[in-house]
Amino acid sequence: MTPIITAFASSPDRGRGLARDMRVRWALEEIGQPYDVRLLSFAEIKQPAHLARHPFGQIPTWEQGELVLFESGAIILHLAEQHHGLLPADPDARIRAISWMFAALNTVEPPVAERSTASLFERDKPWYADRMQTLDERVRQRLRQLSARLGDADWLEGHFSAGDLLMVSVLLRLQTSGLIEEHPTIASYVARGQARPAYLRAFEAQRAVFLQAESERAKTS
Amino acid sequence: MTPIITAFASSPDRGRGLARDMRVRWALEEIGQPYDVRLLSFAEIKQPAHLARHPFGQIPTWEQGELVLFESGAIILHLAEQHHGLLPADPDARIRAISWMFAALNTVEPPVAERSTASLFERDKPWYADRMQTLDERVRQRLRQLSARLGDADWLEGHFSAGDLLMVSVLLRLQTSGLIEEHPTIASYVARGQARPAYLRAFEAQRAVFLQAESERAKTS
Repeated sequence: MTPIITAFASSPDRGRGLARDMRVRWALEEIGQPYDVRLLSFAEIKQPAHLARHPFGQIPTWEQGELVLFESGAIILHLAEQHHGLLPADPDARIRAISWMFAALNTVEPPVAERSTASLFERDKPWYADRMQTLDERVRQRLRQLSARLGDADWLEGHFSAGDLLMVSVLLRLQTSGLIEEHPTIASYVARGQARPAYLRAFEAQRAVFLQAESERAKTS
Repeated sequence: MTPIITAFASSPDRGRGLARDMRVRWALEEIGQPYDVRLLSFAEIKQPAHLARHPFGQIPTWEQGELVLFESGAIILHLAEQHHGLLPADPDARIRAISWMFAALNTVEPPVAERSTASLFERDKPWYADRMQTLDERVRQRLRQLSARLGDADWLEGHFSAGDLLMVSVLLRLQTSGLIEEHPTIASYVARGQARPAYLRAFEAQRAVFLQAESERAKTS
């Protein structure tokens, strides 16, 4: 049965691959699993039909038969458990790669997201410059630590894993910040993720949704 | 081989069970797994010996034989995979409980942590009141959504799971905020977690570390 994921009908990132459905699309492309997409408006994600899928009214979700899941980390872990290619087979290497999944989402993403939120919603506040300096420093600390661990390796634990998929996805949120470029090894790491054929297919798929929505808006206006 | 976790020699929460070793201690108590604790000073967690365990210089970590893990979410998932009692046996129920683990860490904890950070470090800033209102509202939104999903159930997915363990642990960070009390069902849910014998044993174990450190400080001062 073809699984169904949810995504924004009109993504606030304008198809730049930053909405969280991109993470699940990328994982699905890595394992070669076809999928359908249910597109939702901003109004629809807060309505009961979607809250039944996702208690916090977010995207993406996952539906396959009776199983409904939310949280991209959990959906990707589920895919990794059902298919080869996202986690190592060796038990120790597998759980280490899972550590990187949690690290991406719980240690690196929070300061990255806080910085993005501030740059979107606090730009006109009198405290903006002062706060941004603090937030940049919090992100820089994580990048220094990540860079120290990564060294000149291609991926975080030997081969590409779901840990890299999530870490690269989180780092891409810093794209326009200039912070990634301070660490050439991290810049290469992110570029390596973006060069994967599965990433490129997922990127094109989410971008097509945005372009389609734009073209329909143009027709009706 | 007895596993070793790391914790702060002198926890900034003064033994109130809010440092992240508490989450792993609680999980260890739920499954009845004895463990040793390596206590680290604030200086030690940033040094190479600990950075080898935890690339981001945090606690807790997990060592057992050759396996070294970081991120409490990953450590708890590892324990849940090795022992009964932290995740349901049914595959669908299991991955749904894992969704709650990720939701606790990636959807609920970020606004809770951001609020804690602001209340610790921005109290004297001119923008404090204005920002705190925004941060409270972000937390309130998550609590409303969580409360709507929880309803009058005891736990998030039928029986107690690692998803509840992490969610209750995250919610405990709001203890002094007054926000939990706005939702009696969430207040009961948190209290139900805190009443578990395993929680109580873990709480006493981390508190004993703090009391011991205090008593040594008293002797040497």
